[in-house]
Amino acid sequence: MRTQVAIIGGGPSGLLLSQLLNREGIETVVLERKTRDYVLSRIRAGVLEQGTVRLLRHAGVGGRMDEIGLPHDGCYLSTVEGKFHVSFRDMVNGQVLVYGQTEVTRDLYDAQDAIGATHVHEVEDVEIHDAESEHPYVTYRKEGKKHRVDCDYVAGCDGFHGVSRQTIPAGVRREFERVYPFGWLGILSETAPAADELIYANHPRGFALASMRNERLSRYYVQVPADEPIEKWTDEAFWDELRRRLPDDVAETMETGPSIEKSIAPLRSFVCEPMRHGRLFLVGDAAHIVPPTGAKGLNLAVGDVHYLYEALRRWYRDGDAEGIDSYSATALKRVWGAMRFSWWMTSMLHRFPDQSEFDQRMQESELRQLITVPSARATMAQNYVGLPY
Amino acid sequence: MRTQVAIIGGGPSGLLLSQLLNREGIETVVLERKTRDYVLSRIRAGVLEQGTVRLLRHAGVGGRMDEIGLPHDGCYLSTVEGKFHVSFRDMVNGQVLVYGQTEVTRDLYDAQDAIGATHVHEVEDVEIHDAESEHPYVTYRKEGKKHRVDCDYVAGCDGFHGVSRQTIPAGVRREFERVYPFGWLGILSETAPAADELIYANHPRGFALASMRNERLSRYYVQVPADEPIEKWTDEAFWDELRRRLPDDVAETMETGPSIEKSIAPLRSFVCEPMRHGRLFLVGDAAHIVPPTGAKGLNLAVGDVHYLYEALRRWYRDGDAEGIDSYSATALKRVWGAMRFSWWMTSMLHRFPDQSEFDQRMQESELRQLITVPSARATMAQNYVGLPY
Repeated sequence: MRTQVAIIGGGPSGLLLSQLLNREGIETVVLERKTRDYVLSRIRAGVLEQGTVRLLRHAGVGGRMDEIGLPHDGCYLSTVEGKFHVSFRDMVNGQVLVYGQTEVTRDLYDAQDAIGATHVHEVEDVEIHDAESEHPYVTYRKEGKKHRVDCDYVAGCDGFHGVSRQTIPAGVRREFERVYPFGWLGILSETAPAADELIYANHPRGFALASMRNERLSRYYVQVPADEPIEKWTDEAFWDELRRRLPDDVAETMETGPSIEKSIAPLRSFVCEPMRHGRLFLVGDAAHIVPPTGAKGLNLAVGDVHYLYEALRRWYRDGDAEGIDSYSATALKRVWGAMRFSWWMTSMLHRFPDQSEFDQRMQESELRQLITVPSARATMAQNYVGLPY
Repeated sequence: MRTQVAIIGGGPSGLLLSQLLNREGIETVVLERKTRDYVLSRIRAGVLEQGTVRLLRHAGVGGRMDEIGLPHDGCYLSTVEGKFHVSFRDMVNGQVLVYGQTEVTRDLYDAQDAIGATHVHEVEDVEIHDAESEHPYVTYRKEGKKHRVDCDYVAGCDGFHGVSRQTIPAGVRREFERVYPFGWLGILSETAPAADELIYANHPRGFALASMRNERLSRYYVQVPADEPIEKWTDEAFWDELRRRLPDDVAETMETGPSIEKSIAPLRSFVCEPMRHGRLFLVGDAAHIVPPTGAKGLNLAVGDVHYLYEALRRWYRDGDAEGIDSYSATALKRVWGAMRFSWWMTSMLHRFPDQSEFDQRMQESELRQLITVPSARATMAQNYVGLPY
């Protein structure tokens, strides 16, 4: 098989890249390890930055999103001193859109089907070859048979555990990492959201987040120790703990119900440099992981897709390699900005096991600065709705 | 001896408080362990916030300051990516005034002499008694003889190592501390300042600061290990190291010369809560220490003086105890804000021995945010020129 861009990974970033390129007449093949149903069953992010919304619209997949997505003009921060509101609208004339990653993925699959894009699911033993040459190719096994895709470029959209990053030689690659000493216990429930916007809570018992996917689907999280056994947490225990950490007025009135999904996610910051090696590009989680505080994961992946799409379009249309040559540096600049924001949000809102009383007061002062200094609130809002591409 | 307010400590905060109270007809006695010459020989802070400038003027000691102080409309930050300017003027319509603490102290002594204020120098064994009662008193020894000052209130302006804070029982007092794993090696030299404004430099070899006292007196610092022996540092070694860490254009043209003072200062964040115990008030370094990054030490002490002066004035003039009762909470709110700022500046600009590569990138991203996001620069400027009282 021969194509122009081989895309490893059929999650939202791989699909979006494929969709954008196909619409420009650039051929792609998407290789995905799992089934489509499995990909669609992953519960992930749900808050879309303005730039993400625009790129999805540009890819022709904005219809359902614009119809049922929930625009949010701000969020709440809850502290020992009370709940306060950060208005993205007032601060930076911005907003975000609450629309689940599952929905984005579904829209992308539908759009890809409609234009007859090539997807191969349930591939095994994917290998990227000769990325440093002018003739890279990808091999994989499917149903026991070995296949080969010759291509001009390879887009590594295969996540943190994928093969793409590992293809960059260890001597070339630099990895930066911070593992946080706690996790998020999250549930999904068919209940009305506790509030009209997200609530990020810094509480003496630990962080909590009240989020949602739509008007009848809520997503809640509480900070737990990194090695917490999930069996400890019945639905009832979860709701009790959540109510303790959320503001009283919210806790008293919120709807609860059986969880339809429950899991513990570790929190990690990770970046791989560079994000390009010869004709291989890393995109999204393959190159970087943010802790979920601040909702940057999917948005950062879409930012990479934006840069790579523009780079490949310039190359195929105008023969201009500038975008390709600068992809890594350009994408990394934005990545480190979002890393900083996610690290800052995480540091400000969680209780750390080794936190001194001085550190604790620094957290409180950081939160108080957000309440009292408008420009500090503006900086948070600016980062939350998304730094410009 | 009997007075209304006994002031322990004849540094700038004790003197300023005495001056302000005397002008309102409130009697004070200032007790100081050292000689006046010793106090005047201390080389300390040199950057005055707008609120500090206003209060000094209000105390009638602004004449020489307004004549020879150097107004600064901004400062420079130097990073691996280059030097950039933060304009306090453009960001928050503010400025600071460069005028040495030694000069402030001299002005205060002159003003106190002019109104015949009572100062007792070279006191020993100062003790504060019955602070919890309505009749506190202070005892001390001078030239072998024991003395007693009866008073209504005691202001503890005697610094970090003074007796005032120790007078608050251990069970009542809470102390918060962070000791940084490095110090500042500083010199004073009779040379023209390297630049028109302060330069804060984050350099791979460590932090450096180019500051000044006046047009022929410069103050420079380089970060050194906490246990650095000062003998290691000849003047030549200091200038060489400083030049490496400052921006090239500055390093090439800066004037050097013999040091007239050279010392290593440790960096510490420290807060004692509460700042009032009965009729004893803690003021300035007696209650809190900030690392010098951000120039908040003297300014924070002056903030305390402002609150205490207002509280005592209301009490003696109107019989209203509200200011006295709220002194600790009000002062601490501002103290923690400045603690946060000093900690943030320190964290952003120094190299830490245990800093991971990820931490290093976070520093760079924090600096890059200042360069690229105007509201982040505004928040820095707002804190630097001083949060409102």
